[in-house]
Amino acid sequence: MDAIDVITTKRDRHELSAEQIAWVVDAYTRGQVAEEQMASLAMAILLNGMSREEIRRWTQAMIDSGSRMDWSSLDRPTTDKHSTGGVGDKITLPLAPLVASCGAYVPQLSGRGLGHTGGTLDKLESIPGWRASLSNDEMLDVLRTAGAVVCAAGDGLAPADKKLYALRDVTGTVESIPLIASSIMSKKIAEGTGALVLDVKVGSGAFMKNLDHARELARTMVDLGTDHGVTTVALLTAMDRPLGLAVGHALEVEESVEVLSGGGPADVVELTVRLAREMLDAAGISGKDPADALKDGSAMDAWRRMISAQGGDPDAPLPTAPETTRVTAPATGVLSRLDAYKVGVAAWRLGAGRARKEDTVSASAGITLHAKPGDHVEKGSPLLTLHTEDAARFPRALATLEDAYAVGDAADPSLLPLIIDRVTA
Amino acid sequence: MDAIDVITTKRDRHELSAEQIAWVVDAYTRGQVAEEQMASLAMAILLNGMSREEIRRWTQAMIDSGSRMDWSSLDRPTTDKHSTGGVGDKITLPLAPLVASCGAYVPQLSGRGLGHTGGTLDKLESIPGWRASLSNDEMLDVLRTAGAVVCAAGDGLAPADKKLYALRDVTGTVESIPLIASSIMSKKIAEGTGALVLDVKVGSGAFMKNLDHARELARTMVDLGTDHGVTTVALLTAMDRPLGLAVGHALEVEESVEVLSGGGPADVVELTVRLAREMLDAAGISGKDPADALKDGSAMDAWRRMISAQGGDPDAPLPTAPETTRVTAPATGVLSRLDAYKVGVAAWRLGAGRARKEDTVSASAGITLHAKPGDHVEKGSPLLTLHTEDAARFPRALATLEDAYAVGDAADPSLLPLIIDRVTA
Repeated sequence: MDAIDVITTKRDRHELSAEQIAWVVDAYTRGQVAEEQMASLAMAILLNGMSREEIRRWTQAMIDSGSRMDWSSLDRPTTDKHSTGGVGDKITLPLAPLVASCGAYVPQLSGRGLGHTGGTLDKLESIPGWRASLSNDEMLDVLRTAGAVVCAAGDGLAPADKKLYALRDVTGTVESIPLIASSIMSKKIAEGTGALVLDVKVGSGAFMKNLDHARELARTMVDLGTDHGVTTVALLTAMDRPLGLAVGHALEVEESVEVLSGGGPADVVELTVRLAREMLDAAGISGKDPADALKDGSAMDAWRRMISAQGGDPDAPLPTAPETTRVTAPATGVLSRLDAYKVGVAAWRLGAGRARKEDTVSASAGITLHAKPGDHVEKGSPLLTLHTEDAARFPRALATLEDAYAVGDAADPSLLPLIIDRVTA
Repeated sequence: MDAIDVITTKRDRHELSAEQIAWVVDAYTRGQVAEEQMASLAMAILLNGMSREEIRRWTQAMIDSGSRMDWSSLDRPTTDKHSTGGVGDKITLPLAPLVASCGAYVPQLSGRGLGHTGGTLDKLESIPGWRASLSNDEMLDVLRTAGAVVCAAGDGLAPADKKLYALRDVTGTVESIPLIASSIMSKKIAEGTGALVLDVKVGSGAFMKNLDHARELARTMVDLGTDHGVTTVALLTAMDRPLGLAVGHALEVEESVEVLSGGGPADVVELTVRLAREMLDAAGISGKDPADALKDGSAMDAWRRMISAQGGDPDAPLPTAPETTRVTAPATGVLSRLDAYKVGVAAWRLGAGRARKEDTVSASAGITLHAKPGDHVEKGSPLLTLHTEDAARFPRALATLEDAYAVGDAADPSLLPLIIDRVTA
């Protein structure tokens, strides 16, 4: 077996065999297949596609490149959620403790943000003392204590994916549904969860701008989970406007705590409760209604236990930005649209995002929304508040927002419903 | 401009701009575009193709990566030939001095063999004392002395191609007509010849097994030469059986000297004379018939001057192999076919070929044919003689030849005519 044989098989539109896939992923991880060979193969996969069976084998090979976690010592089912990322998507924060409070274990390995999308770990790190890096034993301890844990994936989990993702990032081979799906699912399956709910975002602020592509990605991932014995369901949800009213790390933690207190923006509450029901259903748990757990304080209790167990102080004040400025409504009417991507880029420019993996982020930077598409606004009333540590960042952020919104007679009829569709095995 | 922008443009089936191509080829040559990025781009080019204008720009960028030779100080036109390579293709050896003897200058930069195909430089190196590496000044001296020079390309000529070829070789991206055509033509145009005749081989022993692909390659190269101001013509010629009766370095030099003496196998003579006429026509030279120059000794005189000028002794005995064995006809009848590829592989296994660039070749190894397809053979009469320095090589070579030939009632009707077609601007 050699790399050229594998590359030319895919190049010439043939199916890669189980042996070819197992060999090439393993040899690449060990450095015996060169970066330029894997780059050529990745482009051939992007352009010629992979069958369901090939994607299953590829994902299996990525899982096999490292260790697979095992939660069989736990006395309750495990269930998890993965979102493909967006602007203002803080759902994991209220969701993980909420589902834990309803009787499941939620072992979530999460990531950091890149570009205009925020990362769950960056958000939680705005809580003083909170630690993202845990050993496997610590992870198990937090799970037992709080029912939920959100932390960084260790180096031992799908190392092939880590290497391949870095390569795809510099070789124009990110946008391949088989490679995106296998990257996400290899980590989620290796994480050892028994059930998984995927939140596949669609719209300007999402990785998938197009509903058909998002549906194909959701279908591919649901098939992958199913083929690997994980009960998997996907929701397609709107990311043409930001989710909730807060974009930025500390700002989103604050909004999450509001949701856990029984308040918070309607869309965040609706999506959190819906995803919680899906996660519990997928894990075969019934009895408690997640909407009640938000109201009766049990979700909040789980949150406090989870944050404390990872070194964080749930009562500590969150960082706030010293500099703020406002964008006001240019006319009286209805906010017809507010573009998620542009709000995400503006928050990034205020300091909330990173351009390279090694960059640090500002915990307090971000944007607060005072109205959502469909809301009535008065001329001169505040639409957005921009937060930053460095006022010199305002001009570029404001320029990005210039045509991010419009005021008219009604909401743009092309706005997506919050929950667009559901994809099951 | 960055590499990902160039890669995604081609990946998404758009045309690369002149600026993108000039930038990426230059940045790659200087090491600022990484090998994995160029590998990904090469696969996107292989799968999505390039327009005539893109191929022209790509070739120009490869030429611009190094120096272009200049023969304007010479008092006669320059003309050259390039063959895409095959088994027993020694045509350059009699052709270059023949065309020189008819009044043109032939400045030929040539290559070495890899795999089952032989290289012109390897063949000439079987002549005691002959040197392949010349400085530009030495090249000019040999041209002035002999009218023809065949030598290795220096490092300054299309260095982008050298780097890209090595990359394509390990990334499954060799088989792209735009990349093959630009690789060949960038070197031939940088070589500075005023006219060029391409001998595009078709059949099992050639790089192009398929007539349609060979025709497309010929068309692409003729267009490229024309677009760069070089008068270019291509012939499509047969490589389903070996050319001539000798395969191997010293064996082919011997056969070439026969042709220069007015003898030699009919197919080698026919192709040599036809290519000579094309080269002279393309250079605008008329008056002398190359067939006459083979008979009157003037081509032989030019050969002796050319070999001597590069340190070779045209009268020195050529190396001969100590070990020989024969394959005989299994029946009486007509040799219906003799597969070029298998004969090439057998010669390689006898020591004539190299598996890696750094390998050395045996000058005396090879195969002599005693019959060609269409010839009558008697049961038990010799078909092939195998020559090697090491008798342990016979078994594998003989195994390769087992089903390389057949004796029947007539020549296989699917055999290609020697000269299949002619492609002009």
